[in-house]
Amino acid sequence: MSGPAAPVQAAPPRPVRFGILGCADIARKVSRALLMLPPGAATVAAVGSRSEDKARRFIAETGLPAARPHGSYESLLGDADVEAVYLPLPTSLHVPWATAAAARGKHLLLEKPTALCAADLDAILAACDASGVQFMDTTMWIHNPRTAKMRDIVADKDAFGDIRVIHSMCGFQASEYFLQNDIRVKPDLDALGVLGDVGWYSIRSILWAVEYELPETVIAHRHPVKNQAGVILACGATLYWADGKTATFNCSFLTNLAFDVTVYGTHGTLHVTDLVIPYEEKFATGGTHGSGILEACAEHPGCWWQA
Amino acid sequence: MSGPAAPVQAAPPRPVRFGILGCADIARKVSRALLMLPPGAATVAAVGSRSEDKARRFIAETGLPAARPHGSYESLLGDADVEAVYLPLPTSLHVPWATAAAARGKHLLLEKPTALCAADLDAILAACDASGVQFMDTTMWIHNPRTAKMRDIVADKDAFGDIRVIHSMCGFQASEYFLQNDIRVKPDLDALGVLGDVGWYSIRSILWAVEYELPETVIAHRHPVKNQAGVILACGATLYWADGKTATFNCSFLTNLAFDVTVYGTHGTLHVTDLVIPYEEKFATGGTHGSGILEACAEHPGCWWQA
Repeated sequence: MSGPAAPVQAAPPRPVRFGILGCADIARKVSRALLMLPPGAATVAAVGSRSEDKARRFIAETGLPAARPHGSYESLLGDADVEAVYLPLPTSLHVPWATAAAARGKHLLLEKPTALCAADLDAILAACDASGVQFMDTTMWIHNPRTAKMRDIVADKDAFGDIRVIHSMCGFQASEYFLQNDIRVKPDLDALGVLGDVGWYSIRSILWAVEYELPETVIAHRHPVKNQAGVILACGATLYWADGKTATFNCSFLTNLAFDVTVYGTHGTLHVTDLVIPYEEKFATGGTHGSGILEACAEHPGCWWQA
Repeated sequence: MSGPAAPVQAAPPRPVRFGILGCADIARKVSRALLMLPPGAATVAAVGSRSEDKARRFIAETGLPAARPHGSYESLLGDADVEAVYLPLPTSLHVPWATAAAARGKHLLLEKPTALCAADLDAILAACDASGVQFMDTTMWIHNPRTAKMRDIVADKDAFGDIRVIHSMCGFQASEYFLQNDIRVKPDLDALGVLGDVGWYSIRSILWAVEYELPETVIAHRHPVKNQAGVILACGATLYWADGKTATFNCSFLTNLAFDVTVYGTHGTLHVTDLVIPYEEKFATGGTHGSGILEACAEHPGCWWQA
């Protein structure tokens, strides 16, 4: 033999092979997002529904011809070609199906709200840990490039200083049909109601801003609005940290569309009014006040930027 | 005699002749504003201080050469040429001097916060009523043309709907000198601290939005920040109305400059981030979301306008 051994070539990254467990409306949006990923990042290998017909229809309507239909959730979990499960089922079904997916060695992309309570989420996380699979929830704005820019702004101690106050409001005006029929107003399906649906974003934005330092106290505002079944349609709360920071959020199914968060620091302010669904698909904007935060806007006390 | 009698000519409007009672810093800003009024609207006829020298200096420095200096507040109130008194003294001096001005038949422009409590304000208003003089406080943004446009927006039942949630934050980063020496941190001068200074604007903006309907309940947030003398430097509260509307405000001497109010309706949203001191002297901007609020911006879910 002559010459050195050929160098080992790194294999090109293999696309993650997703199985979608349940044909919820939100799964159509996530399927579209999966299709828009750079080539080679991910594929949808299978779709499982309680009826194979429904899975087939979902595959045709969302343009996922490579996906195999399964007529039951169990059948999808048994598909050896599925590496990761995207689980958009109602929250009350998360513990059984998320733990089942983990037990079958599937990585887990879990729709939000992830669980009805911390103990349920702990059970899901423990199942993922036990099987050595990854857990991720579907809070998409966390992965927007704008969010990295927002972090740069609020983390800049010289220009932004220390966070003192946060206000967030997330909501939308639900239709009469939604308020009667959607899983998010049903106590046996998504019992957290608006708090789990869009309050989730407000709370996440607040915890994101403070780098996930948990508050010392949280006090719910009076008079949350509930439907006849006791599910929350609108509510608010104020969070208190030991160092004096406070945050207030409101969430509502009964107001105009709002995905707002404003972070007030000792030297700077960050405004975002389209946190969850940016006004434009291809870029996202934000506003800041304060000297020195964005050099290009130094002459303006308030300026808007895009990322 | 021949021909009809000459018609009676309306006299041209006479400028209101102001006396400024006290040479506070804020009086310099108000003097500048008086000088910028259209000709014939108002003049400063006199300035009163505890020292005539100080009054003279104030007159020279603010460019009010027509003003007569007075070496005491009493002397200014005795000046027959003064029709209206602008009173910028610390809040704890408002009751004695505002009632004295009213008793001398002077109309009253009273610096905010108007009084330390409702009973004190009632005493001042009663004195004005008894003398048949007009009362006005100095909350300037109420008189900005933008505010009329803001009213058009939130009052539009079709486009804006009903107000459900209001968030406001007003504050600025006080200097170390301010925090040690300003009247707004002294319990014997402006005992309401930040609540009376900029919290005033948040509360006014909230009450303005709901057309001055008083809330059913107001609950202060925990842990207001106070100085050693017990004067509030930062605080917040949530207001509750009987119909389920809520409003939260924060105010602070310890954050970046903020004069924000956002009003969330069932169909529309109003954003203003420079309520009290517009970014530009000659116009003021705002933002709205919601279909139909501003026809010119119908294609954008969020748009900014100027007035």
